[in-house]
Amino acid sequence: MNIHLQRDLEHLQRRILALASSVEQAVGRAIRALFERDAELARSLMEGEAAIDLEETLIEEECLKILALHQPVAGDLRRVAAILKINTDLERMADLASNIAERVSELNQGPPVPIPSGFQVMADLTNSMVGDSLDAFVKLDLELAKRVCRLDDEVDRHNREIIAQVIKYMKKSAENVEPGLNLFSVSRQLERIADHATNIAEDVVYLISGEIIRHHPEALEAGNVK
Amino acid sequence: MNIHLQRDLEHLQRRILALASSVEQAVGRAIRALFERDAELARSLMEGEAAIDLEETLIEEECLKILALHQPVAGDLRRVAAILKINTDLERMADLASNIAERVSELNQGPPVPIPSGFQVMADLTNSMVGDSLDAFVKLDLELAKRVCRLDDEVDRHNREIIAQVIKYMKKSAENVEPGLNLFSVSRQLERIADHATNIAEDVVYLISGEIIRHHPEALEAGNVK
Repeated sequence: MNIHLQRDLEHLQRRILALASSVEQAVGRAIRALFERDAELARSLMEGEAAIDLEETLIEEECLKILALHQPVAGDLRRVAAILKINTDLERMADLASNIAERVSELNQGPPVPIPSGFQVMADLTNSMVGDSLDAFVKLDLELAKRVCRLDDEVDRHNREIIAQVIKYMKKSAENVEPGLNLFSVSRQLERIADHATNIAEDVVYLISGEIIRHHPEALEAGNVK
Repeated sequence: MNIHLQRDLEHLQRRILALASSVEQAVGRAIRALFERDAELARSLMEGEAAIDLEETLIEEECLKILALHQPVAGDLRRVAAILKINTDLERMADLASNIAERVSELNQGPPVPIPSGFQVMADLTNSMVGDSLDAFVKLDLELAKRVCRLDDEVDRHNREIIAQVIKYMKKSAENVEPGLNLFSVSRQLERIADHATNIAEDVVYLISGEIIRHHPEALEAGNVK
């Protein structure tokens, strides 16, 4: 590999890792703001999204610059294309974290509501998926990428449990409908953040093995992806 | 421009336009299934998603092939990069249309519920945004792209109105909570499809004018984007 290309790719990789850390932090804080009814924290999260958006745009520019300057082929080209996609996923995740903060802000304006404890587990799981999917990308670790894909089922299970609890709560009283809808949205948005981490992990599996498991979860179970 | 590159780009463009038509069709049908309580239609939509997913993967492959083969620079490179992003947006939109079909399936299993008429307007608006954003891309039509971005506010307004109606409905009786949540989800998913069309339009504005209006809607109003 061209030494300049290698240096530029490493730089790009560091930027994307830093962006992923910002997203993890935003998710963690949004859930903390939910449990601690911290209005200030929720507000600062909504404002912080702009910095992540800007970074996404700059990373995309850097990808295009690398494509134009080094005209990478084969594995290097796939790597830059993967970063372009991961970048978009991370920006969407930051967007979702900011949506969670919005829901939390609305919840905090009303009287306290019972927060299903599953939210903490789900947020921790989601964040480990975000970190691991990026780790799998940097280290080209197929096993780790496949583990992230499998974890998504667990997040979905927590999401379903939380939603069942929220529905019960909403049915108790008409006053519970609006806070319940906010809790429902938070759960759905967390689940979608985990979906984006799964997208990244699936792209990593494709990058390493050439197997398309995106849209084919059964391939994971059937051992088709070695 | 290299004549082979031009031919390949035109081919790619036709594929992405066909993919966009499939998405528009899926959205239109999902909403028809909602109003007509058509269980068969909803089921077929969920099954049809696989073909769209496959096409997305093939288009991505074609983009990478063009990058490796022709090593485009400047405007051509940005065009291929834009197609990569549009492709991802379209796949997500198809995914959302399929989610709508799932919600509709669930609704159709219960007793009939009042469907806010705003859904039809919102779906029509969303579909015109999908078509126009792709048109703006193909024709590099800045005005059209900007119009799509502005239409997003209208979709958001319909979404808020529908959600207000749904909340009222849910508050009336505990039995309305679950169907109400399904209607809420359909509205949110339609709104997100419109968001993806807006992403595409914003990328087109960037492609033409070099101005980043993504994440900066105020630039549209202030006339900063000429």
